[in-house]
Amino acid sequence: MNEIDRRQAILFALSAPFALYAAPAVSQQAPGMNHTMPEAPGVHWMGDEQIAMLMYPGMTLMDLIGPHHMLAGLMGAKIFLVAKSLDPVTSDTGVTITPNASFETCPRDLTVLFAPGGTDGTLAAAADPQTRAFIADRGARANYVTSVCTGSLILGAAGLLKGYKATSHWSVRHVLAGFGAIPTDARVVRDRNRITGAGVTAGLDFGLTMVAELRGRTYAECCQLMSEYDPNPPFHSGSIKTAPSEAKTPMVELLTDFVKKSEALAAAKES
Amino acid sequence: MNEIDRRQAILFALSAPFALYAAPAVSQQAPGMNHTMPEAPGVHWMGDEQIAMLMYPGMTLMDLIGPHHMLAGLMGAKIFLVAKSLDPVTSDTGVTITPNASFETCPRDLTVLFAPGGTDGTLAAAADPQTRAFIADRGARANYVTSVCTGSLILGAAGLLKGYKATSHWSVRHVLAGFGAIPTDARVVRDRNRITGAGVTAGLDFGLTMVAELRGRTYAECCQLMSEYDPNPPFHSGSIKTAPSEAKTPMVELLTDFVKKSEALAAAKES
Repeated sequence: MNEIDRRQAILFALSAPFALYAAPAVSQQAPGMNHTMPEAPGVHWMGDEQIAMLMYPGMTLMDLIGPHHMLAGLMGAKIFLVAKSLDPVTSDTGVTITPNASFETCPRDLTVLFAPGGTDGTLAAAADPQTRAFIADRGARANYVTSVCTGSLILGAAGLLKGYKATSHWSVRHVLAGFGAIPTDARVVRDRNRITGAGVTAGLDFGLTMVAELRGRTYAECCQLMSEYDPNPPFHSGSIKTAPSEAKTPMVELLTDFVKKSEALAAAKES
Repeated sequence: MNEIDRRQAILFALSAPFALYAAPAVSQQAPGMNHTMPEAPGVHWMGDEQIAMLMYPGMTLMDLIGPHHMLAGLMGAKIFLVAKSLDPVTSDTGVTITPNASFETCPRDLTVLFAPGGTDGTLAAAADPQTRAFIADRGARANYVTSVCTGSLILGAAGLLKGYKATSHWSVRHVLAGFGAIPTDARVVRDRNRITGAGVTAGLDFGLTMVAELRGRTYAECCQLMSEYDPNPPFHSGSIKTAPSEAKTPMVELLTDFVKKSEALAAAKES
């Protein structure tokens, strides 16, 4: 791919997440563009990844949408929001979104398989035989097997993390050991083709990591600029290591029951 | 509110974003909880904010879901995902989500009015008489008038930013001057009861800022820990000031047409 093609590929690609509706106009009118470029740019500018993102009742929507926002910038890629059926799915915060694929219609061979987290909904998904079979089947052949937050419990329950370093939400990272994984404390953990993100908002860092993996660093840097990902949290409470005790104590307590249930899931898996 | 009530209020409140489905079990079983606490905790533990978040075709879903994730932690608050009608709305990245209120059914008196951004869809919403009338009406009485990314163009078009400092996505921040606002370069900008966030991912910083504003710093720190918001972007391209030219040049070009259209919208408003 020459330099002009590369640049145009980026222009088209980045039109997806931030400017999907504006893309045709922008691509025709932006200065420096090749005006003879066909409406549908050649596939050599684009990728053809097939990305499946699991959806289930009670999932944490932010776990899904953070990575989705970054991955949606991959021009030419197809993203399947996959659920058991095509019925709308309600997230942990009560937002209802519509799948575009079911376990039956999702492609068999995927570039990326992704699982978002949550709490009880995640444990239910991880314990559900159909969901577990779907994840195990697609994960066995996917180029990348990935998750954010407690989504790694679903991967673990499907047997996909045995012998792999992986991470999760801080509250249940240790539980991954029960699935044969090696719990690892980092924002994004990669071990061979397993790439897992920490809790909830780590999906943005995970998403950019995946974009760079699939299309290169410059492409990811374009996505980062377009989404103005220059974070500036107003407080310093984002990590269990830095959070003040007034936040840490109640949150650890709040999650005690969820952690116990997660441990029980891992123990049941081992037996 | 005494210390125990305060702590329990936080426990309950934080169960919403991360553990909505787990909340009843967690609240009954976590150590240190008051087991005689009624199923429905007293409203004195909770707030009663009425928050309306605008939805429209082509909106950037991440602009909506980042803040929504944080605001959904406000136990007792009601969040209205408001669109012109109750029909599902498709975002810029093709994800379809379902409103739970229309312009007609949305409460008239709001604690927070919020507008997400996007590109052409945002300009269409800002130019739409019904949408503009809805935003102007609710904004005139809301305790807080807020936005993330180019959502501030909608607020501006509705006449709500005249004389106020405000921000937007880096590409169109200057356009706010056309609506009588004072463009201000910061991640989250507050001027009296107008609170606006920068591009897309600034919604997380905005969301935490709003939680602290409504319920105090500790509450926001709990939300931050629960969502593990300890960002670690893999690259340094999130700001137009730090992005490498390989990312900056194509992204500035890509947005040229959108910027021109935004300027035209502001000019039309002034005439």
